[in-house]
Amino acid sequence: MKSYLECIPCFFKQALRAGRIATDDEKILKRLMDELGTHLPRISLESTPPETGRLIYRMVAEITGNPDPYRELKREATEQALARYPRLKRTIEDSDDPLLAAIRLAIAGNVIDFGANASYDMDKAIREALEKDFAILDYDAFKSRLKRSGKILYLGDNAGETVFDRLLIEQIDRPMTYVVRDKPVINDATYADGVAAGIDRIATIVSSGTDAPGTILATCSPEFRQMLQNCGLVIAKGQGNYEGLSGEKREIFFLLKAKCPVIADNIGVETGAIILKGINLN
Amino acid sequence: MKSYLECIPCFFKQALRAGRIATDDEKILKRLMDELGTHLPRISLESTPPETGRLIYRMVAEITGNPDPYRELKREATEQALARYPRLKRTIEDSDDPLLAAIRLAIAGNVIDFGANASYDMDKAIREALEKDFAILDYDAFKSRLKRSGKILYLGDNAGETVFDRLLIEQIDRPMTYVVRDKPVINDATYADGVAAGIDRIATIVSSGTDAPGTILATCSPEFRQMLQNCGLVIAKGQGNYEGLSGEKREIFFLLKAKCPVIADNIGVETGAIILKGINLN
Repeated sequence: MKSYLECIPCFFKQALRAGRIATDDEKILKRLMDELGTHLPRISLESTPPETGRLIYRMVAEITGNPDPYRELKREATEQALARYPRLKRTIEDSDDPLLAAIRLAIAGNVIDFGANASYDMDKAIREALEKDFAILDYDAFKSRLKRSGKILYLGDNAGETVFDRLLIEQIDRPMTYVVRDKPVINDATYADGVAAGIDRIATIVSSGTDAPGTILATCSPEFRQMLQNCGLVIAKGQGNYEGLSGEKREIFFLLKAKCPVIADNIGVETGAIILKGINLN
Repeated sequence: MKSYLECIPCFFKQALRAGRIATDDEKILKRLMDELGTHLPRISLESTPPETGRLIYRMVAEITGNPDPYRELKREATEQALARYPRLKRTIEDSDDPLLAAIRLAIAGNVIDFGANASYDMDKAIREALEKDFAILDYDAFKSRLKRSGKILYLGDNAGETVFDRLLIEQIDRPMTYVVRDKPVINDATYADGVAAGIDRIATIVSSGTDAPGTILATCSPEFRQMLQNCGLVIAKGQGNYEGLSGEKREIFFLLKAKCPVIADNIGVETGAIILKGINLN
C-alpha cells in the first residue's frame, strides 16, 4: 500500500510519540521534528508507510540516542497479555467455534499498537473483538487452506499481541513458523518478544530480516523472501504487514483491526473494523 | 501562548486540510507538505500558533494559487447561522438570564472553526453550549466590567460565528467595536463576513490589520493596538485570539470552547470545555 498525504501529519505524530518516550528534552524533540521536516521532500508517497516508519524510528534512535524506546512498554504489554492468557484460553475452549474465537482474540491483541494509537484498553478490545461483526471474513477460504497447507507462515506484529497470536497458533495446532522483526522498531515484536510470549514452545520463531515496522520485502532477508514464496499459507497480522504486503501477488490472509482511517479506506471498511481478508484467493 | 511540540503534526494537518479545499492536485499538495517541512527548522516554538498559522496559510495561497480557499465554506456557515438567528434570539429572550444565554450561544458559534476541526454539527454545539457547565466562568467580574466600561472591543473569530457574536452584542446593547482580520485566513471573519452577519448594523466593524488567524499584535495596525490599550473592556472570542493575547498585561475576557488538547491544557481545563475567563482582573 502506498502512502497518502494524510499519512504525513501522522508521521510527525508518530515520531513525536516515540521521541517523547525516548527523551523529555524538548530541544532534542524539536530537532527530531525539524529533521523529519527537512527530509520530507525525499519521502515519496509511492513508498509504503512502514518504509517511512523505518526511517522515522531510525531518526528517533539516532537523535535521542535511544535505540529501543518502547522496550519497557513492550515488556509490560506482554505481561498484561500473559496475565489474561488462562482466561482467554478457556474462552476459546468454551466457544462454539474455537478457531473463530481464537481469530477474534488474535485481532483483539492487534490494539497493542503504539504506532497507530497513543493508548489502548486491552479488556475493552477483547470484549469488542469477541462480539463485533467482521467487516470482511474470508473464513471458509481460510479453513480450506488450513486443511491443505503444509508449511504455515505467521507474520507477527506487536509485542504483547504475540500472546494473542500464541492462542491462535495453539488452536490451529500445526507446524508453524512465526516471523518477527529483526530489530526493535516501535513496539513491534522481535525474537525476544516472541520468546517472552512463549511462542518458541509452539512454533519456530524466525526474523524477517527487516527493521521496518511492517514486512517491506526489499528490506527482508533472502531466506525470509524464499520462505514467503514457498510456504502453503501466510497469515499476516496487523496494519504494518498489510501495508507492506497488500500489493503482493501471492495468496495472503490478513488479520487485523483497521485502526487508521487511511488503511480502513484502502481496504474499503470503516475505521475500527475487524477483518480476516484473503488476497489472491484461488 | 507559545507553541508546543504537539502543534507540529497539527500544522501539517491544517495545511493539508486547507490545501485540499484549494486544490485536488496531489502533486501540489505534496509540494505544500514538503515546503512546510523544509521550513520547519525556522518555526520556533517560542512563536504563537497563529503566527505559524499565518505562515501556513500564506504557503497554501502561494502554492495552490488560491488566496481564499474557505470563501464558500464561510458563506455557507454564515447562511446556516443566520437561518438559526430568529430561534436563537427567542431562546435568549425566554431565558432566566439572557446575558448568560447569549454568552453560551456565542461560545456555541465557536465550533465553526476549520482550523481546529474538520467538521462540526452546529445544532449539537448549540444544545451543548446551552446546557454544559462552564469550566471557568468569571461572570461576576464580567458583569461588573460591562457596567462601568465605556468603550467595548469585541474581537471576532470565525465567519458564521459572527452571527452568534451578533446575538451577544445585541444582548449587551452598548456601543461596541467589532474587530475582524484584515485578510482571509482559514475561515476567520473579515470585514465582509461581519457585514454578511449583520454586525455592521449594531457595531462598528474594524480590521485589526492582521492576516494571522488570531490577534498577533506585532502584525496588527498601530490604530488597533492603541484601541486595545484604551478601551474599557475587551471580549476576545476563540482559540486564535487566546493564543495571541493570553500573555498580555491588560484585562481581557476570553470566551471560547477549548477544542484543541494543547490549548485546553494551557488553560487548565478538559478538551471541549467552555470558558469565560478573565485575565489580569483587578
